[in-house]
Amino acid sequence: MVNTKKIPCVVFGASGYAGVELAKMIVSHPIFTLEALFVSEHSSDANKLLSDLYPKYKGLLDFPLVPGGKTNLEALTSSLSSVDKGLVFLATPHEFSHDIAYSLSAKNITVLDLSGGFRLQDPELYPQYYGFSHKYADKLNTIPYGLPEWNAHNLKDQALISLPGCYPTASQMAIKPLVKHNLLTENCVPVINAISGVSGAGRKAALGTSFCELSLKPYNLFVHRHAPEICQEVGRKVIFTPHVANFERGILATIVMQVKDGVTLEQITTAFESQYADKPFIRLRSEPPHINDVAYTPFCDLYWQLDGTDLIVISAIDNVLKGASSQAIQCANIICDLHEGLGLLPSAQTQGAV
Amino acid sequence: MVNTKKIPCVVFGASGYAGVELAKMIVSHPIFTLEALFVSEHSSDANKLLSDLYPKYKGLLDFPLVPGGKTNLEALTSSLSSVDKGLVFLATPHEFSHDIAYSLSAKNITVLDLSGGFRLQDPELYPQYYGFSHKYADKLNTIPYGLPEWNAHNLKDQALISLPGCYPTASQMAIKPLVKHNLLTENCVPVINAISGVSGAGRKAALGTSFCELSLKPYNLFVHRHAPEICQEVGRKVIFTPHVANFERGILATIVMQVKDGVTLEQITTAFESQYADKPFIRLRSEPPHINDVAYTPFCDLYWQLDGTDLIVISAIDNVLKGASSQAIQCANIICDLHEGLGLLPSAQTQGAV
Amino acid sequence: MVNTKKIPCVVFGASGYAGVELAKMIVSHPIFTLEALFVSEHSSDANKLLSDLYPKYKGLLDFPLVPGGKTNLEALTSSLSSVDKGLVFLATPHEFSHDIAYSLSAKNITVLDLSGGFRLQDPELYPQYYGFSHKYADKLNTIPYGLPEWNAHNLKDQALISLPGCYPTASQMAIKPLVKHNLLTENCVPVINAISGVSGAGRKAALGTSFCELSLKPYNLFVHRHAPEICQEVGRKVIFTPHVANFERGILATIVMQVKDGVTLEQITTAFESQYADKPFIRLRSEPPHINDVAYTPFCDLYWQLDGTDLIVISAIDNVLKGASSQAIQCANIICDLHEGLGLLPSAQTQGAV
Amino acid sequence: MVNTKKIPCVVFGASGYAGVELAKMIVSHPIFTLEALFVSEHSSDANKLLSDLYPKYKGLLDFPLVPGGKTNLEALTSSLSSVDKGLVFLATPHEFSHDIAYSLSAKNITVLDLSGGFRLQDPELYPQYYGFSHKYADKLNTIPYGLPEWNAHNLKDQALISLPGCYPTASQMAIKPLVKHNLLTENCVPVINAISGVSGAGRKAALGTSFCELSLKPYNLFVHRHAPEICQEVGRKVIFTPHVANFERGILATIVMQVKDGVTLEQITTAFESQYADKPFIRLRSEPPHINDVAYTPFCDLYWQLDGTDLIVISAIDNVLKGASSQAIQCANIICDLHEGLGLLPSAQTQGAV
Repeated sequence: MVNTKKIPCVVFGASGYAGVELAKMIVSHPIFTLEALFVSEHSSDANKLLSDLYPKYKGLLDFPLVPGGKTNLEALTSSLSSVDKGLVFLATPHEFSHDIAYSLSAKNITVLDLSGGFRLQDPELYPQYYGFSHKYADKLNTIPYGLPEWNAHNLKDQALISLPGCYPTASQMAIKPLVKHNLLTENCVPVINAISGVSGAGRKAALGTSFCELSLKPYNLFVHRHAPEICQEVGRKVIFTPHVANFERGILATIVMQVKDGVTLEQITTAFESQYADKPFIRLRSEPPHINDVAYTPFCDLYWQLDGTDLIVISAIDNVLKGASSQAIQCANIICDLHEGLGLLPSAQTQGAV
Repeated sequence: MVNTKKIPCVVFGASGYAGVELAKMIVSHPIFTLEALFVSEHSSDANKLLSDLYPKYKGLLDFPLVPGGKTNLEALTSSLSSVDKGLVFLATPHEFSHDIAYSLSAKNITVLDLSGGFRLQDPELYPQYYGFSHKYADKLNTIPYGLPEWNAHNLKDQALISLPGCYPTASQMAIKPLVKHNLLTENCVPVINAISGVSGAGRKAALGTSFCELSLKPYNLFVHRHAPEICQEVGRKVIFTPHVANFERGILATIVMQVKDGVTLEQITTAFESQYADKPFIRLRSEPPHINDVAYTPFCDLYWQLDGTDLIVISAIDNVLKGASSQAIQCANIICDLHEGLGLLPSAQTQGAV
Repeated sequence: MVNTKKIPCVVFGASGYAGVELAKMIVSHPIFTLEALFVSEHSSDANKLLSDLYPKYKGLLDFPLVPGGKTNLEALTSSLSSVDKGLVFLATPHEFSHDIAYSLSAKNITVLDLSGGFRLQDPELYPQYYGFSHKYADKLNTIPYGLPEWNAHNLKDQALISLPGCYPTASQMAIKPLVKHNLLTENCVPVINAISGVSGAGRKAALGTSFCELSLKPYNLFVHRHAPEICQEVGRKVIFTPHVANFERGILATIVMQVKDGVTLEQITTAFESQYADKPFIRLRSEPPHINDVAYTPFCDLYWQLDGTDLIVISAIDNVLKGASSQAIQCANIICDLHEGLGLLPSAQTQGAV
Repeated sequence: MVNTKKIPCVVFGASGYAGVELAKMIVSHPIFTLEALFVSEHSSDANKLLSDLYPKYKGLLDFPLVPGGKTNLEALTSSLSSVDKGLVFLATPHEFSHDIAYSLSAKNITVLDLSGGFRLQDPELYPQYYGFSHKYADKLNTIPYGLPEWNAHNLKDQALISLPGCYPTASQMAIKPLVKHNLLTENCVPVINAISGVSGAGRKAALGTSFCELSLKPYNLFVHRHAPEICQEVGRKVIFTPHVANFERGILATIVMQVKDGVTLEQITTAFESQYADKPFIRLRSEPPHINDVAYTPFCDLYWQLDGTDLIVISAIDNVLKGASSQAIQCANIICDLHEGLGLLPSAQTQGAV
C-alpha cells in the first residue's frame, strides 16, 4: 500500500444510528483514524462513551462523546487546520448542518454532510420542505452531491459535500440509468413506493416508534422532503410514497415506469450493466432482492422486469449504510484517492490505494 | 330476534389459517352452527382436533378434523340435503374447489368458495394463472362474486358464490368508487403496490417463510393471479406488485391513480362516502391507516390524498379476515337475510335479523 | 337470562393498554355498561376519543377521554351514588390509585384497583418497592386480593379489591396448588424466570422500548416489586427474575421447584386438576404452552414435568388480560353474581347469570 | 506479521447457518484460505453457490457447494495431506460428524467438529441423548473440548477437537469461575434458564419455525442433550431449561446459584475478573446484557448480582458465533499459533501472530 499516511476524521452527531456506524467504519478503516466524536452541546449523552449508548460495541468503540460547544469546536478547528488532509462528518440535524458546515471547512478539510441541509439546489424549496430559509442560497448549486456511482469525478478538492438521502439513493440508482439511456417515455412519471426500516426515524424516544405502536404505515404522502431531491436528480417529476415497517434496517423501493415503445429488456439490462459494471457496491440481481439481502451491508441491489412497456425496478439498500454512513465513507475514500471500497468490502482491504 | 332458526355450516380445508377463522366465527355466531370440519383425505392433520393444531383455541375449538374422503362427503351431502338452509365453506386449494364445488351444491345449500377456482370469468386465463383448464367454462360468468359492499344484491339464492382474493378485496374497495363516479382519466392505469403478512402464504413448512429466512420482498412481478382478477372487476388494466413482509396478518395497498383535470378532493370524498356510508366494515379514515389498525379485524380502512391530478389511495385489510374468512361470513349473513355484521361486530349482535 | 339489569362501569387510566382492554370488554359485555373513561387531568390525551389513540377501534370505542379533575370526579361520584350497583376500575399509576381509591368508594360501588397500590399487606414494604409511604397501612391486610381462582369467595360486598400483578398471577397459578397440597420440600425456594412482552412497560415514549433498541433482557434482578407480592401469596421465599423480550403481549414463567421425596407426577397432577377443574380460564396442558397460545386471551395455561424431585412448571398468560384487565372483569362478574366468564368466553354468553 | 504462510481450510455442512458464518470468517481471515465447501452428497443445495442460498453474500461468497461424495472426499484428503497445516471444519449433523471425523484427520490436519458427535465423555449417554451408539467410545475422554477461555492449552497438535454446544458455552462461562474458586455451596444445583434465537433450530423448512407459528416456548424439559454436557464440564448437576423465541440470533442464559455463607460480591467479581482478564471475547458488564448486545458478535457478555447467598449470573452470546462458528475460528487461531482474535476482532488484525 503506497499511501499509508493516516487521515484524521471527526464525527458530529455521533450518538445517532448513522453516527455510530461512521465511528465503527472509521475505527476499522486502514487509513482513517478517529480523532473525536461530538454530540450536541446540551445532549444528555454528552461525556458518555459511545459504547454506553451502544453496549454492543463495548471494548470496540469506547470513545467519549464530546459536547460540541464553542470552545471545543474552536479547539477542533485549530487542531485540524494543521493536518495535510482531514475529514469532518456531519450526522446532525438539517438545520444544525446548515449552520455549522461552512464554519468547519478549512484548508485541507472536507466536510461531508449527511443531513439534507445542502441537498436541494433551489433555495425556495427549503422553507417548504425543511422549515428554514437557506443562508447559502447562492452556493447551493455548486455543492457536489455525494452519490459516488454517478458523481465520483466531482468529489475531490471540495470544502463541502452533500450526501444524498436514503430514499433518494435507492431511487436514483434505479432510475438514472434509464434516463441516461433515454429509455423512458417523455411523460413517464416514475411511481416510487418505498418501505423503510424504523431506524430511519432516528434514535429517540417516541410513541410512534415504540415496539407496541409501530406497524407498517405510509406517511408524508406527497410532502416528503426526499421527493424534490429525487426529482432534481433524475430530471423529472416522480410520485414518491414512503412507508415505515416493523424491521430495523433497510429500504426497499418498488418503482414503476413506462419505457418507450420498442424498448427491449436487453436495452434496459445494458443500461444498468454499462453504468454499474465496475461499481463494487451495486449488485445487479437475477431475482428480486429481499430487504435482508442488503440490511447491514453497503450494497445496493437492483432487479428489473419488463412487461410490454411497463417496467418495474426494485432497489434495495440499508438506509443507514448505503443510504447514509457507508456512502459517506465511500465518498471519503474517493476524496482521499483510496479504493472506494476500502474499509467497507473485504476484497478492498488488500487492494489499498488506487 | 325474529329468525332464530339455526343454520348448519360445514368447513372444508379447516386446518388452514382461513379455515380456523371460519370455525371460530361460526362457533361464536348466534345463528350459524358448526356441523363438521373437513381436511384433505390424506392430510397428516386428519382426525386431530382443530385445537391440536391451534392450541390457542384449546377448550374453544375442540372439533375433529374429518378426512374428506368419498364416504364422508356422501354422508355429509345426505345430511345437509335435509336442512332448510345450509352453508358449505371451501377454504381449499383452487383446483380442489374447482373439482368439488358443484358436487356439494344441493337444494337449500350454498357453497361459498374462498379459493380462486371460480373468480375469473374468462376461462382462458385459468391455465396461465392457475395451472389447470376449467371444466365449468360456460358457468364462470354467472357465478356471483362475493364482494358484499358491491354485490350484496346478487348473492341470495345461489348454489355457488366465489369469494374475492385478499389483494383484490383491498384494491377494489379503493378503485371501484372512482370508476363508478367516472373520476379517473381514460388512460389511468392504477399502480397497486401491496404488502401482505406472511399468513398469506398459508400454513405449511417452507424455507421461504421460516422465521430466519423471511424478510420484506416483492414477488410474482407482472404474473400474480390476483392481477387479472382486479382488472376484471375494476374494468381497466392495473399494474400490481405484491410484497410479503415480516408480520403475520394484514395487507396494505398503496394505489396511485390519475384523476381527470378539475376533479376535486371533495368529489373523491363524495365518491367514497356515498358508496360506503352504510357499510359497517368500511372505515373512511382521516389519517393513513397502519396495518395493525385492521389486523385481526373484519374492517377495510381507506384513506386518500390528492395532489393536482395525482391521487393516492391507501387501503388496508386483514388478509385472512376481510380478505377471506370474515368476508365469507359477511356474505353468508347476507344470504341468510341476517345483518351483515352478525357474529362479526359487537354492535350487530343485538340488532339480529334485518 | 334472569339478571338483565345493567351495571354501570367507569374506567380511570383508560388511555393505557389495560384501560383500552377494559373499555373493550365492558362495551361488549351483556350486563356492564360503560359510563365514562377518565384520564389524568393534565394528560395530552384528555378530550380525545379513545379510538384516536387506538385507531383499531374506530367505530367501536369512540368514547371521549374525560380529564379526571376535581369537578369531573365529584360529578361522577354523585352520579354513581344513585345506582344500585356500580364498578370503578383503576388502571392508574400505583400512587394515584393509593390516593384516590377510598375517595371513590361509596355505597353500592366497588373499586377494582389494577395497580399495586394496595397489593402488599406489609406497609413497610411500600417505601422500598413503590417509593411512597402508605396512608392506609392499617387497612392493607383487609383488602381482598382479586385472584379469582383462589379468592372468589372473598370478593363480594367489598369497597375495594386489589388486583394481582401480571407476574404474580402467572406465578401463583403454578405454585399455589403445590403449596396447598404440601408437595414442596420445606426449604424449596421456587426459582421463577419470567419473560414479558413489551406492553408490560405501558404506553409511553421511551428509548428503551423503541423498536430499534429493545431486545430480550433481564431487569430488576432481586428488586422487582412483584417478588414480595409473590412471596406474600405463596407463603415462602422465591427468587424471581423478570425479562422483557421483543413481542407485544404475554408472560411465560418457567418455575423450578423441589418436591418432597416420593412425591409422584400423579400427585402433582391431582393438585392442579382438583384446584382448577371448574375454572374456565385455567387450561392444564399436555404440551408446554407457547406464549402465543395465550396472548390476547383471558387464559392461563399450565404445564408441568417432574424429574426425580425436580419439578418444572410452565405458566403462561397474557400480561394485559389475565395479568390485568380480563382478570378485573372476571372479578367484576363474580362480584355481580354473574358467571365469571361472562363477556370473556363465548360459551359464557348464553349461560348468563349463575 | 511473522507467520504469513497461508493455512488452507475446508468446511463441511457449509449450507447451514454455522457453515456460512465459517465461510465468511475464513474468507476475510488474513491467514486462513477457503479451499472448499462441502454439503451432503444428496443435498438439494449441491453445486449451487453458497451465495445462491444467502444472497446477502452475492459477490462475497460465490463459492460452489461441492457434494461430499466418496470421490470428492478422497480427492480432498489427498490434497490436504500435502500441506504443512490444514483445517477441516465440520458443521454437520452429529452422526455424520461421528462417522466421518476420523477418516478426515491426517498428518498436519486438524478436524474441528462443531457437532455434538464427540462432546460427551461417557459413551453410554450417546444412545439416550443422540440416538446412536458411539464407535469411538474409548477415545471420547481424550478428545479436547474447544472452549478456548478454559482449554486453550489443550488444543494444539490434535487430530480432532470437539467444539462445545451453544447453551453449554453460555452456561460454562458463567459457572466455571465460581466452581474453580470454590464459591458455590456443596449442594448448589445451578438452575439455568436459557432462551435461544430461532437460528438454533438450523436452516430447514419446518412448520414449528415458520414465521406465523413460532413464538416463545420452552422445550425439551429435563431431556435436552446440552444438559449432560454442561454437567460434565462444570462437575455438578444442573437443571437446564431451554426456550426458543422470536428473534433470529443469540442466547441469553439466566443462572441462579447459591454461594457459601459469607461469600461476598467482591469474591465473585474477583473470580470472573481473574479468569477473564486477558480474554478478548469475554466482556464483564456492569449492566445486564441485552441479547442484541451480543447478537452477530463473537462476544460472551457476563453480569452478576448477589442477594444474600443467592447469586444470579446472566450470560449472553450469539448462538451461531460464540456458540459455534466464531468459537471454532478462535480455536483454529490458537491451534495455528495466531492471536485468538485474528479475523474476528478489528484490534487483532494488526496484532497478527502472537
